[in-house]
Amino acid sequence: MSGGLHEHTLPSVLEELSRARANHTAYIDGAARITYSEALERAHRLANAWRKLGVGPGDRVLWLAQNSYRIVEGVCAASLIGAMFCPANWRQTAEEMAFVIDDFSPKVVIWQDEEIGEAVRGARGIARRSGATWIQHDGPDEYEALLTSADASRVERAIDAAGPTLVVYTAAFAGVPNGAMLSQRAILTQSLVVQFVQHLTPGSVFLNSGPMFHVGTLMTTFAVFTQGGTNVFVRRTDAEQLCQVIHQERCTFAFLMMKVCEDIVRLNKDGRYDLKCLTSPAFFPEWDAMVTINPRDTRNTAYGYGQTEVNGLVTWTFYGAPGDKGVSGRSAPGTQVRIFDPDDKEVTDGQVGEIVVRGPTVMCGYWNRDELNAERQRNGWHHTNDLGRRETDGSLSFVGPKTQMIKSGAENIYPAEVEGCLRRHAAVADAAIIGIPDPVFTQSVKAIVQLREGSACAPADLIEHCRAHLASYKKPRIVEFIDALPRTKLGAIDYKALDERFGGGNYPGQAWQTAQRA
Amino acid sequence: MSGGLHEHTLPSVLEELSRARANHTAYIDGAARITYSEALERAHRLANAWRKLGVGPGDRVLWLAQNSYRIVEGVCAASLIGAMFCPANWRQTAEEMAFVIDDFSPKVVIWQDEEIGEAVRGARGIARRSGATWIQHDGPDEYEALLTSADASRVERAIDAAGPTLVVYTAAFAGVPNGAMLSQRAILTQSLVVQFVQHLTPGSVFLNSGPMFHVGTLMTTFAVFTQGGTNVFVRRTDAEQLCQVIHQERCTFAFLMMKVCEDIVRLNKDGRYDLKCLTSPAFFPEWDAMVTINPRDTRNTAYGYGQTEVNGLVTWTFYGAPGDKGVSGRSAPGTQVRIFDPDDKEVTDGQVGEIVVRGPTVMCGYWNRDELNAERQRNGWHHTNDLGRRETDGSLSFVGPKTQMIKSGAENIYPAEVEGCLRRHAAVADAAIIGIPDPVFTQSVKAIVQLREGSACAPADLIEHCRAHLASYKKPRIVEFIDALPRTKLGAIDYKALDERFGGGNYPGQAWQTAQRA
Repeated sequence: MSGGLHEHTLPSVLEELSRARANHTAYIDGAARITYSEALERAHRLANAWRKLGVGPGDRVLWLAQNSYRIVEGVCAASLIGAMFCPANWRQTAEEMAFVIDDFSPKVVIWQDEEIGEAVRGARGIARRSGATWIQHDGPDEYEALLTSADASRVERAIDAAGPTLVVYTAAFAGVPNGAMLSQRAILTQSLVVQFVQHLTPGSVFLNSGPMFHVGTLMTTFAVFTQGGTNVFVRRTDAEQLCQVIHQERCTFAFLMMKVCEDIVRLNKDGRYDLKCLTSPAFFPEWDAMVTINPRDTRNTAYGYGQTEVNGLVTWTFYGAPGDKGVSGRSAPGTQVRIFDPDDKEVTDGQVGEIVVRGPTVMCGYWNRDELNAERQRNGWHHTNDLGRRETDGSLSFVGPKTQMIKSGAENIYPAEVEGCLRRHAAVADAAIIGIPDPVFTQSVKAIVQLREGSACAPADLIEHCRAHLASYKKPRIVEFIDALPRTKLGAIDYKALDERFGGGNYPGQAWQTAQRA
Repeated sequence: MSGGLHEHTLPSVLEELSRARANHTAYIDGAARITYSEALERAHRLANAWRKLGVGPGDRVLWLAQNSYRIVEGVCAASLIGAMFCPANWRQTAEEMAFVIDDFSPKVVIWQDEEIGEAVRGARGIARRSGATWIQHDGPDEYEALLTSADASRVERAIDAAGPTLVVYTAAFAGVPNGAMLSQRAILTQSLVVQFVQHLTPGSVFLNSGPMFHVGTLMTTFAVFTQGGTNVFVRRTDAEQLCQVIHQERCTFAFLMMKVCEDIVRLNKDGRYDLKCLTSPAFFPEWDAMVTINPRDTRNTAYGYGQTEVNGLVTWTFYGAPGDKGVSGRSAPGTQVRIFDPDDKEVTDGQVGEIVVRGPTVMCGYWNRDELNAERQRNGWHHTNDLGRRETDGSLSFVGPKTQMIKSGAENIYPAEVEGCLRRHAAVADAAIIGIPDPVFTQSVKAIVQLREGSACAPADLIEHCRAHLASYKKPRIVEFIDALPRTKLGAIDYKALDERFGGGNYPGQAWQTAQRA
């Protein structure tokens, strides 16, 4: 695992690429073009710079900025010294960022001023922990100054490849997010799978157009990187910029949500950008005409079931078979998936239960959550908190989250988090969040609010209250009032009753929920 | 590595396949058709049976038989209990087999009577170690009786996936072969690479038509197995039987040497066997017309550089690029390759040096060869004993063995081994082995013999002497006599002078040797 005869780590991969593809471009990011040979040197300089700032094994570095090749660089540098690197969600409010700062307690924070400076500064002001060194990533570019002035000599390493290196916050089921700690081994094993599924070659040019605080993008970033391909970065998803970059850098594939494809089609109606270099599964006629439709088996795309805690997908339609009963394909080689009842006994095929996972891509645990880890990792299995079914033909179906969750665009929204925010408003006695069907984002957020006796409050005020404290995508679009929230016999909020009365639906687990009701 | 949350072992893969592809055929071998669900149960029964015979962690099981699905089963069972399983070369003489028995010192020997019974019985008679339980694989089929009567309950395991599980004898540079110990991790990592390179799917049906005492076949066997595909076994390479099996089982690919393809073309001139199910790279027109030419990139075939000690190939043309200067492609993701001078310093690109390797597929070492292991693994790198070059474009070229070696068909022949045998003949004072070009087998073996003063001996007697003590393919085809073997200034046999005088050539390292001479 560690250095020596059998080493398989991000640094060892980079060492080899610096020889096998020394002058091949590893990163393209605006004007920056960095080769694999340069990428190796930069990773070692960065690691040496961090060491001088006191970052050692088990210490943490926080990234409060948008997409950048420096996220990959940061993960490599962290791998060299046994530290952890977390690219935080930049769409969060100051308050949410402050929570992550206090929770993650980094020795170094790398931050960006443009677009998100206000939130970052706000967070820095609110956070109770203040021992970190703050390094600005844009503007005066303190990051680059630090790196180029650092020692270039190779960091001697004896790394545990199974230890945590990349941390991604997720799973705010109980109201606050938790940092999933992923190992180099998780990254490298997943990379070998993604290379096959997406048929990556060193000629692949991947546009990182999805947010890099999600594994959905990152699992492909690293698969391209460890294969010696080229990663292209844009700070955030902007249709015009995506078109320019695809056209100019001849990107061969990208992380694309349907809405972005629609925006691109509208924007490029006159064909001023040549996007034929981009391969894509067939989506809709105007899009299909603009790009190159993947000529290979349509299973060769990254569909399936996964979550941050297992470093992306663990089941793939790619590994399934035509005619599979299950909608989520089958597990990748190396991963074990079981369907458990509440006593952790395997249920019969065809029955719904909790999806549990074992394998090299499973997280080491959540950062700083001993109790939750003991619960989620009980009996040697990672409990996903998701429901699924092993079909009688052996294929798998994801059925839905065990806990109510809303999916809006690519983002998971946890009702508990939004409800907690609403309850902190002076006029609110209690609140429930449901998801209502949305033609563009699949679901959008609706709040059902019970006001305190004698209080009055406009829906717009409550929406604004949420916007001020939560990432904008989490705020309710609609607020309705109710005298008293309906309760189940056990006293919990009766979400089914709320859905029926207030038009909730289209949840990720809809099919199963419908079946359960029948 | 071991059991639990991050387990990635052959048994964990089999556990998952027994659910994801329970009724899919894992093995076809004559009349035997075994599903993944049955394969799991059989592996556990076999492990339990061996345990009862006293096989524990670190103990050894020797396979003295031809190709069979039971080799895969044996490796899985060994993995379950931390034992080692070695499929020995069945083409060896009694004497050679006896050496392996004494060297490997197994607790259990599984043996075959048909075709090789005489050699096996001879070996059993000669071997000094006699503590093993001998189980016959054919005839009365003691193996099956043992397995079916064994406990079927799951073996509880806490396995070190980095420990040795599969042993393959090779590298008889110093006169006797050495058993390379390969880990589950080596097998599983290589499988992920081979799956991609050979584009395996669960629909793949692989004909194990190469010998399973070589990693050349085994690395594909396990790649198919861990992907949930179907492995088809034939005891040995017989063109007629291969045609029958391909036709009947609809094999999609096979391990094929050129000579076998030529035999098949001759045999199937009338097209009585339909071989269109078989995909193959284009070889020659008659063959190409009989099978289905792989429509994908021709790089998608297993060419490159490798050896038993690194579990097959470590560089692949697949990972290269069109126009590469190097003939051996580039390393697979995860493997580090360096070119070292005799002081273990990296040489400049373009210079020839020894190929050294690091990565998860590197062997744990040779069984029972502490001194050799210390030498081959010095400074944390596996020294391959092969010469190579990192080209200036980053690609790699295998140049040739550091030590003289002959390649005949798919077999490596080590001159020291044949010379040692000849020197043990009463009439022989000294002997040297060279390889001469052969239109079918690339090279064949020629002996240059210096007789004892006053002795006389016919070439046929010496050839027969070798045939009696060595695997038949190692025996000289031609013997020539010489008064005194030419020597270098340092007193070593001057093989270059012998090659020039006696027509040696076409060595695996020819290109380099020519360059060195110039």
